[in-house]
Amino acid sequence: MKTSRLEAFSDGVLAIIITIMVLELRVPQGPTLHDLLGAATGLLTYLLSFVYVGIYWNNHHHMFQLVARVTGGILWSNLGLLFCLSLLPFTTAWMDEQAFATTPVVTYGVNLLLCAIAYFILQTTIEHNQGRDGALATALGRDLKAKTSPWIYLLGILGALLVPWLGIAIYTIVALMWLVPDRRVERYIAAHNVADD
Amino acid sequence: MKTSRLEAFSDGVLAIIITIMVLELRVPQGPTLHDLLGAATGLLTYLLSFVYVGIYWNNHHHMFQLVARVTGGILWSNLGLLFCLSLLPFTTAWMDEQAFATTPVVTYGVNLLLCAIAYFILQTTIEHNQGRDGALATALGRDLKAKTSPWIYLLGILGALLVPWLGIAIYTIVALMWLVPDRRVERYIAAHNVADD
Amino acid sequence: MKTSRLEAFSDGVLAIIITIMVLELRVPQGPTLHDLLGAATGLLTYLLSFVYVGIYWNNHHHMFQLVARVTGGILWSNLGLLFCLSLLPFTTAWMDEQAFATTPVVTYGVNLLLCAIAYFILQTTIEHNQGRDGALATALGRDLKAKTSPWIYLLGILGALLVPWLGIAIYTIVALMWLVPDRRVERYIAAHNVADD
Amino acid sequence: MKTSRLEAFSDGVLAIIITIMVLELRVPQGPTLHDLLGAATGLLTYLLSFVYVGIYWNNHHHMFQLVARVTGGILWSNLGLLFCLSLLPFTTAWMDEQAFATTPVVTYGVNLLLCAIAYFILQTTIEHNQGRDGALATALGRDLKAKTSPWIYLLGILGALLVPWLGIAIYTIVALMWLVPDRRVERYIAAHNVADD
Repeated sequence: MKTSRLEAFSDGVLAIIITIMVLELRVPQGPTLHDLLGAATGLLTYLLSFVYVGIYWNNHHHMFQLVARVTGGILWSNLGLLFCLSLLPFTTAWMDEQAFATTPVVTYGVNLLLCAIAYFILQTTIEHNQGRDGALATALGRDLKAKTSPWIYLLGILGALLVPWLGIAIYTIVALMWLVPDRRVERYIAAHNVADD
Repeated sequence: MKTSRLEAFSDGVLAIIITIMVLELRVPQGPTLHDLLGAATGLLTYLLSFVYVGIYWNNHHHMFQLVARVTGGILWSNLGLLFCLSLLPFTTAWMDEQAFATTPVVTYGVNLLLCAIAYFILQTTIEHNQGRDGALATALGRDLKAKTSPWIYLLGILGALLVPWLGIAIYTIVALMWLVPDRRVERYIAAHNVADD
Repeated sequence: MKTSRLEAFSDGVLAIIITIMVLELRVPQGPTLHDLLGAATGLLTYLLSFVYVGIYWNNHHHMFQLVARVTGGILWSNLGLLFCLSLLPFTTAWMDEQAFATTPVVTYGVNLLLCAIAYFILQTTIEHNQGRDGALATALGRDLKAKTSPWIYLLGILGALLVPWLGIAIYTIVALMWLVPDRRVERYIAAHNVADD
Repeated sequence: MKTSRLEAFSDGVLAIIITIMVLELRVPQGPTLHDLLGAATGLLTYLLSFVYVGIYWNNHHHMFQLVARVTGGILWSNLGLLFCLSLLPFTTAWMDEQAFATTPVVTYGVNLLLCAIAYFILQTTIEHNQGRDGALATALGRDLKAKTSPWIYLLGILGALLVPWLGIAIYTIVALMWLVPDRRVERYIAAHNVADD
């Protein structure tokens, strides 16, 4: 199977995940500004999850620019990543509806951690397929950001156990860290003349 | 990243936004024509939002015909636009459920204004990337419609503060203004022989 | 704009319409077979709407195989068709929840009629663009099925005013009539060697 | 019609089915770990259905790599398969909400069986079109897994009539059986040099 198929399917799933979260937002029950403000935290958590799915979509595509063919292992680790990401609307809604109680905020962090682990498994599966000096491994290099993120999620989960808002703050910091553009794959493509499909 | 990727993802998100609004429509609770008429305003606001998303989809594609490659800035300002548009089902449902009370109608106008600003940022980011005499800036020229729209939205928001229906009327006028086909990009493509991908 | 763009967007919207109807199906409230049978009519109306959207998707693609470029008129009459089709989940759910009362069944028929009219407008817009001896007009010929369908819908609406189930039966007959494969476009393509994109 | 059209539409529908199931998951009503555990079975059934849709998506694409053109019969048996799969969110939600009562678990098994039959009809329609020594029939060979699956579903349905969890266990075994990668189509492609589109 060529990667275009798998990328189109992943794009579809990610586009749905990023959009249906708005269906989970509870429309305010009254007509006043005060009612709208009651939905404000819901909007902010939606924004946070939106940014996370956007980051994964972005990284996913950069990564697959360096993949030539899909194996069974890549296919199923990709579905594993999509499954973890598809839980975000669920954990986001719970966190919002329970007004940022400890357990939901911890659960949201665990969900983010699961996504990071699933992404790491997908990346490792691809690197394993390409061999030690494969395109992806070479392009990513030491891959500090990916290697530190899970630990910061863990820190966020621990922080949330103390004060839920501390957890949210730490999850937001990881998102901001990933918003900074990452040029490694682009640089590798420019240097090695990888054909864009 | 090539634009085809980003366009396909944006298409997916826009297709979902335009369609899920119908899920927010409350199915009438009784079997009579009177019950259906109670849902009529919901249908009309759905139509208005449908037209707006259709306009953005249309303009989005025209614009991206003149974009060759996607940068990090373009990618994130595009996600910013999608986020603003994805709030339309939420503000549409609120406006409808609260029977066009002042605050929800104002909020809907603010949402439209945010979409226009996000679109403007995306457009400016692209023009900035292409340089002063870039394809997009040349094609769009003075771009009167885009420059006046935000001010008409502001007028609509002010109007809604007086009489909600005045706001709705003004938002509808902006939509109609954009329904008139815009041939600038097509003319530029015809004149400059830009390859269609 | 090339048709591939418009077809991909229409595909997305149609895929969502055809699938979200299942979200409107009420999950039975009890665990028995009797509870499931209470949802049986819901399943049958879902099946009917599913077949209708499938038919439109099928015809839409056949038609667009003979369209070379999209104009503003085609774009907006296509969005008009998508809007009418997007109301099907709403009218289907109403018909089902009100246990096939007269008004909802009539409304469903009106929705089907609106879709047929919107499709006719789209087709006429394309034919008008291509001129009298254009590919589409030649391929469709007398186009009996399309010309009789609206009248059968009208008959169904009148029938539903007498006995709702008569309306449903007539709507089903139109669907079956369209299930019979239509080879006109395929024959035209074979005869005229139209390049598949 | 070329297969790319049909595959893109099927991808869209499958991406929506696999994702909207998460919307049916009930967000826990309280903020404690105990509330989350109450949703655990919902998560597990979601996972099972997710894996099933993933398997169908995977097999669907492998199969269509050996299909050159779509006929009316293939188109409608494909829509039949999509319809059966689109019922999975409904039967999954019912099974979960009724705490794995006998009838819902049996119904879920019947749904899986219907999907398998619809897939078999689609495959047979394609093989019939390609003739006895067609690409698909040759690639699939004796096709043991597909031929035994329906019987195991039947076994699962019978098992569920005794003890619901036995049914779930058997449905899970079929899923695991299909997770093992199937290289027949890939081997055929490698051996016969079928051009990837």
